[in-house]
Amino acid sequence: MIIMKTEATDKEIADVVKEVRKCGLKADVSRGEFRTVIGLVGDEGKIPFSHFAVLPGVKEAVMVETPYKLISREYNRYMGEENERRTVRVGSVDIGGDKPVYIAGPCAVESKKQLFRIAEGIKKAGAQVLRGGIFKPRSSVHSFQGLGAIGLEQAEAALSWLREAGDRFELAVVTEVRGETQVDLVAQYVDMLQIGTRNMYDQDLLTTVAIKNKPVLFKRHFGAGIEEFLSFAEYIAAEGNKDIVLCERGILPLGKGRNYTRYTLDLAAIPAIQKETYLPVLADPSHATGRRDLIFNMSCAAIAAGASGLMIETHFDPKASFVDGQQTITPEELKEVIDACNQIYRLIASPGK
Amino acid sequence: MIIMKTEATDKEIADVVKEVRKCGLKADVSRGEFRTVIGLVGDEGKIPFSHFAVLPGVKEAVMVETPYKLISREYNRYMGEENERRTVRVGSVDIGGDKPVYIAGPCAVESKKQLFRIAEGIKKAGAQVLRGGIFKPRSSVHSFQGLGAIGLEQAEAALSWLREAGDRFELAVVTEVRGETQVDLVAQYVDMLQIGTRNMYDQDLLTTVAIKNKPVLFKRHFGAGIEEFLSFAEYIAAEGNKDIVLCERGILPLGKGRNYTRYTLDLAAIPAIQKETYLPVLADPSHATGRRDLIFNMSCAAIAAGASGLMIETHFDPKASFVDGQQTITPEELKEVIDACNQIYRLIASPGK
Amino acid sequence: MIIMKTEATDKEIADVVKEVRKCGLKADVSRGEFRTVIGLVGDEGKIPFSHFAVLPGVKEAVMVETPYKLISREYNRYMGEENERRTVRVGSVDIGGDKPVYIAGPCAVESKKQLFRIAEGIKKAGAQVLRGGIFKPRSSVHSFQGLGAIGLEQAEAALSWLREAGDRFELAVVTEVRGETQVDLVAQYVDMLQIGTRNMYDQDLLTTVAIKNKPVLFKRHFGAGIEEFLSFAEYIAAEGNKDIVLCERGILPLGKGRNYTRYTLDLAAIPAIQKETYLPVLADPSHATGRRDLIFNMSCAAIAAGASGLMIETHFDPKASFVDGQQTITPEELKEVIDACNQIYRLIASPGK
Amino acid sequence: MIIMKTEATDKEIADVVKEVRKCGLKADVSRGEFRTVIGLVGDEGKIPFSHFAVLPGVKEAVMVETPYKLISREYNRYMGEENERRTVRVGSVDIGGDKPVYIAGPCAVESKKQLFRIAEGIKKAGAQVLRGGIFKPRSSVHSFQGLGAIGLEQAEAALSWLREAGDRFELAVVTEVRGETQVDLVAQYVDMLQIGTRNMYDQDLLTTVAIKNKPVLFKRHFGAGIEEFLSFAEYIAAEGNKDIVLCERGILPLGKGRNYTRYTLDLAAIPAIQKETYLPVLADPSHATGRRDLIFNMSCAAIAAGASGLMIETHFDPKASFVDGQQTITPEELKEVIDACNQIYRLIASPGK
Repeated sequence: MIIMKTEATDKEIADVVKEVRKCGLKADVSRGEFRTVIGLVGDEGKIPFSHFAVLPGVKEAVMVETPYKLISREYNRYMGEENERRTVRVGSVDIGGDKPVYIAGPCAVESKKQLFRIAEGIKKAGAQVLRGGIFKPRSSVHSFQGLGAIGLEQAEAALSWLREAGDRFELAVVTEVRGETQVDLVAQYVDMLQIGTRNMYDQDLLTTVAIKNKPVLFKRHFGAGIEEFLSFAEYIAAEGNKDIVLCERGILPLGKGRNYTRYTLDLAAIPAIQKETYLPVLADPSHATGRRDLIFNMSCAAIAAGASGLMIETHFDPKASFVDGQQTITPEELKEVIDACNQIYRLIASPGK
Repeated sequence: MIIMKTEATDKEIADVVKEVRKCGLKADVSRGEFRTVIGLVGDEGKIPFSHFAVLPGVKEAVMVETPYKLISREYNRYMGEENERRTVRVGSVDIGGDKPVYIAGPCAVESKKQLFRIAEGIKKAGAQVLRGGIFKPRSSVHSFQGLGAIGLEQAEAALSWLREAGDRFELAVVTEVRGETQVDLVAQYVDMLQIGTRNMYDQDLLTTVAIKNKPVLFKRHFGAGIEEFLSFAEYIAAEGNKDIVLCERGILPLGKGRNYTRYTLDLAAIPAIQKETYLPVLADPSHATGRRDLIFNMSCAAIAAGASGLMIETHFDPKASFVDGQQTITPEELKEVIDACNQIYRLIASPGK
Repeated sequence: MIIMKTEATDKEIADVVKEVRKCGLKADVSRGEFRTVIGLVGDEGKIPFSHFAVLPGVKEAVMVETPYKLISREYNRYMGEENERRTVRVGSVDIGGDKPVYIAGPCAVESKKQLFRIAEGIKKAGAQVLRGGIFKPRSSVHSFQGLGAIGLEQAEAALSWLREAGDRFELAVVTEVRGETQVDLVAQYVDMLQIGTRNMYDQDLLTTVAIKNKPVLFKRHFGAGIEEFLSFAEYIAAEGNKDIVLCERGILPLGKGRNYTRYTLDLAAIPAIQKETYLPVLADPSHATGRRDLIFNMSCAAIAAGASGLMIETHFDPKASFVDGQQTITPEELKEVIDACNQIYRLIASPGK
Repeated sequence: MIIMKTEATDKEIADVVKEVRKCGLKADVSRGEFRTVIGLVGDEGKIPFSHFAVLPGVKEAVMVETPYKLISREYNRYMGEENERRTVRVGSVDIGGDKPVYIAGPCAVESKKQLFRIAEGIKKAGAQVLRGGIFKPRSSVHSFQGLGAIGLEQAEAALSWLREAGDRFELAVVTEVRGETQVDLVAQYVDMLQIGTRNMYDQDLLTTVAIKNKPVLFKRHFGAGIEEFLSFAEYIAAEGNKDIVLCERGILPLGKGRNYTRYTLDLAAIPAIQKETYLPVLADPSHATGRRDLIFNMSCAAIAAGASGLMIETHFDPKASFVDGQQTITPEELKEVIDACNQIYRLIASPGK
C-alpha cells in the first residue's frame, strides 16, 4: 500500500502506478477525502518498499499482509476516512446510507403477471429493490432451474420483465448470475448483479462480474469463515470495482438431531465484518431459516445486529410459489417486517433517544 | 401421555398414576387450567394405550414419540394452554414474563469487595439477577478454576458473599455447578442453579440438580443441535422440575480462516425453540462472541429474536478481571444495553405500536 | 426411469425416447449387459408413468426420487449389473479396476524442467497419472494463481509441457479447470479434466466440462454432505457423461482449539459412497491433511477404506515448491506409499488370503 | 517444568517439589530412563523460574505454555525418551505395545447369559478386552439407560458378570462411568474405567476417575478439536494418573443433505495426536459410522492410520441387541476384522517388508 502525500500531484501518482506495474503488480488508486492511497494487487513480496518510500509525492509505503486489503478499514484509515461506511448506489437506491434497504421479490420469476403483482406489493410494503431469480442454482439437476434454463429467448423475456417492473414501480432490480456466459446478457437489464452462496468461491465468475462495473451483491458461502468471505470479495475489488454489498445468508447447521432451521444465520458476523471492512452488509433471513414463521423475528434481529438492509423472499401466494414457498412471506407480512425494522434501525443508530 | 377429562377426580388421577407405575414407567402429573395431563417418563412402548384409554376419568391416551415431550408445546396444548410461555420465578424475579430479565456479574467471583461493587453497578444499570462463577469449568487444568477449587472454606465464603450481595442489592443470585458433589452446598446459597455448556450432556449432574427443586439455568452445549438440547432439558423435567430456563450461548464456529467471534451465536434457535417448548430462552452474547465491542449489537439482536432476557458478563474494570476480560463490559455499558433492549422488547411484543 | 425388455428393439427404444422428450425431459439411454434402461433427466412429476408402462418394449416404468439417480446403484441394478463398479479409462489407465491408481505431481506447474523431472520421478515410483496445476484456485487474489493466470501463451505452454511429459513418461495427464472459458483450451491437451473442491457447486462449469466427453475428476466441496456431492456429480451425468471419478479431499475441521490438520479427511465417505453409486472414488491426503508427515499413514488408511486410488502432491524439492510445499512429498517417499498401498489393496480385496 | 540433572538425589528432587508447592502449584514427578522431570500443575506464571534454575540438582527450569504439557512429547523429550509410546497395562493386556488390542462386546449388558456367550465369541475371534455398558448415556431420558439405571443391585450384578466373564475367558474388562457416584462401585470390578464422548468435558468426573489409579479409556467428544481433547486428558494426568488410552470415535457430521454415516471418523487425528503425546490412541468405528456394513473397511483404515487398537460393538445376534444393533457385528465378522487388521498393523510397522 503506497500512501501519497495530501499535496501529491496527478503526475506523481501516475509515476508511482507505473513503478508498481514494473514490479509485476496491479495498482488500485483510491482518492480519499484527505489523500490518495495506491493499493497493490498481487504478491507484495515483489515490491522494494524502501525504494517506493522515497519516490516524489509518497508519504509512506506499507506492507499489508491481510488477504482483503483493498476493502479493509485499514485502507480507509490511510485515506483519512476511518469511520466511514461505503454507500453503494444501486439504481437510485443507496445501500449503506441513512435508511435500511429492503430487497424483496419471488425466489424465481415465473411470469410477467406474477412479477408485476409482486413488484407492486413490495413497493407498497416499503421495499426499494426487486429481486427475482432467472438462472436458479439448484441442488438437483432434476429440479426447476429457472426460466433462464429453458432457452435464451425465455431468459431475455424474464430479464425484460424484471427491468419493466423495476421502471414501472420505481424499484431498482437485481438478479443472480450463476455462470460466466450469463454475465453480459444479465448486465444489460439489471442494476445490480448477484453472486449466490454456491458461487462465492468461483473466482473466474467474480472477475467476469466485477469488470461490468455494476454494483455486486455478494453472498457468503454457507461453509465460509468470515476471513474467506472477505478474501473472495477482494477478487471483485481487485478489478477496480468496490461497489460491493455483502450478504450473510446462513452457514451450515451443526449438531446431532434436528435443528429446525435450514442454516444457522450468523448475525454476529454482521458487526464483526463491519469492523474489518467499509462495505455494507445485508442479511437474508429467508434462505437462512427456511421458515416463514421465523422471518419477522430474524429480520428484526438482523437490523438490531447492525445490518444495512435485508433480502426477503416475497410472493402474493407463497404456497403456489415454484420454489422455496415454505420460506416466503406475503407483501402484507413484509410491510410489518419493514415497519418494525425501520424503528429498530433508528433506535440502534441513536440508542439514547 | 394420558389426558384426563376436565371433571376427572383426584382419585381417578391417582389411579391412573398407579397403573402407569405398574408398567414400569414414571408419571409426570401436570394440572393445567383446563385439564390434567399425565406425562409418561420412560419407554412408552411398554404402555397398553387402549387399556388406559378406557380408565375412569381418562379423556384420551396418546403416544408421543418426541424425546422432549414433558417440556413440549404439545403438552401445553392438551392442558388447554397452547400459547402460554412458562414463567420461571427466581427469587422475586419472573423470567419469561412481561419484562426482559438481565443476569449480570463477573465471570468469576474474586473477592467480596469486587462482588459487592459489581452488584451495586448492575443493580443501578437495571439488571435483576447477579451471576458470579465459583466453580469455573476451564479448558486447561493449569488455569484458574474459581475460588471453589481452592477449598471448601473458600467455596462457602464465596457463596455467602453472593447471597449477601443478592440480599443487599435486591438481586436474585445464580451460580454454576460443575460436579455432582457441589450441588448440595451451592443450593443452600443461590436462587437458581446453572448448568454450563460443557455439562449439558452430563445426565447424572442434571438429575442431581433437578431434584433440588430450584430453578435451573440450562445452557446449550456448543456442539448440540436444538433437538439434543431439548432432549437433555427433558432429563430435568423428568424429575418433576420444570422450572427450567434455557440459554443459547453460541455454537462451534465454522469455515476456513479466522471467524472473528469465539462461537456462532445461533439466534434463530431462540424463536425456533419457542415453537417447540413453553420454557423461556435467554441469550449469552458474552461467551458467544468473546468480544466486548459486539455486546451491544448482539444483545439488541437477541431480544429482537425473541429472547426473554440476557446473561452478560460485567465488571467495573474488565481488564483486571481474572477470567474473560476481553468479553466483559462495564456497568455503564450494561445500562446502555438494557435501555436499548427494553425498548426493542416492547416494540417486538406489539409491533404495530 | 424406463426399464426396457431384454428383447426390446432399437426402434422401440427410440420411440420411448421420443415420448420422453415430448414431456419436456431429457432421456439418458444406458445399454447394460442384460437390458437397456432409460433415465429421465428433469422433473419426473411431468411423466405419465402408466402411459409409459404399456409402450411396446417397455418392461417397467419406475419413479425414482433421489437427486442422483443416473449414477446410482439402483440404475445398475435395473441393468442387471448390481455389483459392478464402473471402470473409467483415462488415457491408457483404468480407474476403478483391478489395481489402485496413483495420480501424482506438483501442486503448480512451474517450468518444463521442473515438470519433466517430477514426471520421471513419479513414474519410477509407480504412479500412472501426472497432475500439475495451471489454473490455480486460491483464497487470496494476491497469491500466485498458476501460470495460466499470466496469459494465454503461458497457459498453452504449460499445457503442452504437461502433454509432452505424459507422452514421454507414459503417464496419463490431468489438470484443473476453474472457469468455463478455460475448458476448450485445456481439453485439447489433457486426458482428464479436474473440477476442484471450490467449484463443486458451479453447475454451469460442470455442464461445460461434461459435454467435452472427457473423463472428469470431481472433488467434493469441503462443506458438502455426501448427498450433495453426488447430486452435483449428477449434473455431469445428465449431459450423458458418466466417466466420472469422485475424490474425497477433506471437509471443514471442527471443534475449538487447534486441530493439527487442515481439513478432516472423511474416509468413511469412501465405502459409504460406494454403496450409493457405481462410480470409483479416490482420496487426496495431501490437501486434506496439509502435512507431509501424515501422508504415509493417511494414504494407507484411504486404500484400506476402499479407495480406488490416491492423488498425492509430489515434488523433488518440496521446500522450493511455489505452492503447498508443506504437504508435498518426494518421489522417493511416494514410492514407499505406493508399495505399502498396493499390498493393502490386495489384502482388502481378498481378506482371507 | 523443572528438568533435574541425571545425578540429582532423591532429596534434591523432594526439595524442588517442596518449593513448587510453596508457590501454590502441584508437582508431577516423572522418573525417566535418563533423568527426572518435575511437571508443574497450575499457573506457571506464579513460578520464579530463575530461582528454580539454580536450586541444587536442577538442570533447567522451562516454562511450557501448552495446556497439555504433562502428556506431551516435549515431556518425554526432556526425560530422554523422545520416540517412546507409553504402554498402558490393562489387566494382563498391553495397549500401545507390539500388537494391536481389540476391545469388543455388547453396547449394553443385557443378561449374564448374553454376556458370557459374547465374551466367548470375541475371545475366539482374537479380542483381548471385553466391554459392556451398564451405565448407558442416552440422548433421551425415555430410552433404556442400561441395567445400572434400574437400581444398585442390578448394577452390582451386571458388574460382577462382567468380572466373571473376564476371568473365565481371560479377557480384561472395561465399562463406562457416567457420573461421579458410580466411580467407586465400578472401580471394584473392572480393569479399566471408560469416560464416554458426552462426558469428555466433565472435569469433576475426570478427576474422580483419575484418582482411582486404574487405566482410563478416554473418548474424544464429538465436538472437540484435538487440542481440547488433549487438554482434558491432562485433567487425568494432573492427578498423577498417566495410564490414559485415548479413543477417536467420530466427530459431528457436516454438510447439507444426508451424510450416510452417524459421525465423521477423524482418522487423521490418530497420527496427528501421536505427534503430540506419548499416549496410545484407539478408534471406535462402530459409534463413528453407525453402520455394520462399514466396520470392516473402517477398522482396517484405522489400523492403517496408526491406531494401537480398536473398540468394536459385537453381539451374537445384532438385531436382538437392546441398543445400537444396526452398528453391531457378530463374533465371526469380528474375526475377519481382526485377521485383516493384524496383517495391516505388521505391514505398517515395517513397510519395507
